[in-house]
Amino acid sequence: MPEAPATAEPAALRMLDAAEALIRRHGPAKATVVDVARALGMSHGNVYRHFPSKAALREAVVARWLHAVVEPLEPIVTGPEEAPARLARYIRTLAGLKRQKVLGDPELFAAYHLLAEEHRDAVAAHVATLRQHVATILRQGQAAGDWRVPDPDATAQLLLEATMRFHHPHLVREQAADETAPARLEALLALLVKGLGPA
Amino acid sequence: MPEAPATAEPAALRMLDAAEALIRRHGPAKATVVDVARALGMSHGNVYRHFPSKAALREAVVARWLHAVVEPLEPIVTGPEEAPARLARYIRTLAGLKRQKVLGDPELFAAYHLLAEEHRDAVAAHVATLRQHVATILRQGQAAGDWRVPDPDATAQLLLEATMRFHHPHLVREQAADETAPARLEALLALLVKGLGPA
Repeated sequence: MPEAPATAEPAALRMLDAAEALIRRHGPAKATVVDVARALGMSHGNVYRHFPSKAALREAVVARWLHAVVEPLEPIVTGPEEAPARLARYIRTLAGLKRQKVLGDPELFAAYHLLAEEHRDAVAAHVATLRQHVATILRQGQAAGDWRVPDPDATAQLLLEATMRFHHPHLVREQAADETAPARLEALLALLVKGLGPA
Repeated sequence: MPEAPATAEPAALRMLDAAEALIRRHGPAKATVVDVARALGMSHGNVYRHFPSKAALREAVVARWLHAVVEPLEPIVTGPEEAPARLARYIRTLAGLKRQKVLGDPELFAAYHLLAEEHRDAVAAHVATLRQHVATILRQGQAAGDWRVPDPDATAQLLLEATMRFHHPHLVREQAADETAPARLEALLALLVKGLGPA
């Protein structure tokens, strides 16, 4: 499953916008085909043509929400810095984006979190995208002689797990008032990069 | 606050045993002074002499429960292996003990988890003990020339956070069926130890 409907038609995007507005205003229960059709003043059939079920609509809403985290990360993967710096920047930016999502608007986050619990496939696709990004940076660093990583995909998972404290929604929320977190993440990133290399 | 009533009188220990039996049979609500007194056929005053409030009793129960994780770890801190091997063994054993606690008897774990949420001080003391242990191993490794760690306490926190995926109750439960976790933890420990050293 693609992480976001990048090529979705304008009509589908308007429906997702309407669903998001409903969630923002009334909570996750309101993200239904019927409510979206009513909000846009159109027939249910019209919505069903793009989203064949309530579950499909909600899954697309979750996928788009998760994609908002992924989008700002993409330029880092292909950026000009050397791989070790890019690896650290990627995870640092991921942590910042997640922190903003979780703590910036806790009610909206809670609503989306409930939806995400219903659609673990969308979450798994999101995590897979993050892992692919990190693995890509690891391969680039390997080609440049920064480190030797026999299994970039496994090591990507390991690096994301090692930094989970700083980007896993539950842990971010659990320690919301933790102001030393950014400095600790920097120390951890330095340790992990040192652990990876030299080749 | 000490993590466990190591020097507690036998009477207090019997009361804690009774509280644990009540929790096991009836859930966390039953860990009260009145229930413990009834279970042991003694007066409330007798229990209050050792635990001046319901909160004090419950906190002692939580502390003892957490101490059951710490106890098997203590010999590792002072063990004969070199510090890098001891560091890995410590975290590996911690992960195994937590996994056993969380997944071995999920209902009992849920009951204690609720109690622990009420007594964050006991949890903080527990985490501080783990951190002290890891810092002690780091200092020993530093003295032996295994690595150079300017701030062992901060690095201990960092190592426990980096491996949190494998010993944080919420994360252990979230991925209970994850059979590759032990192998991934080994890879992560190798990477962290490499990142720490050489001096």
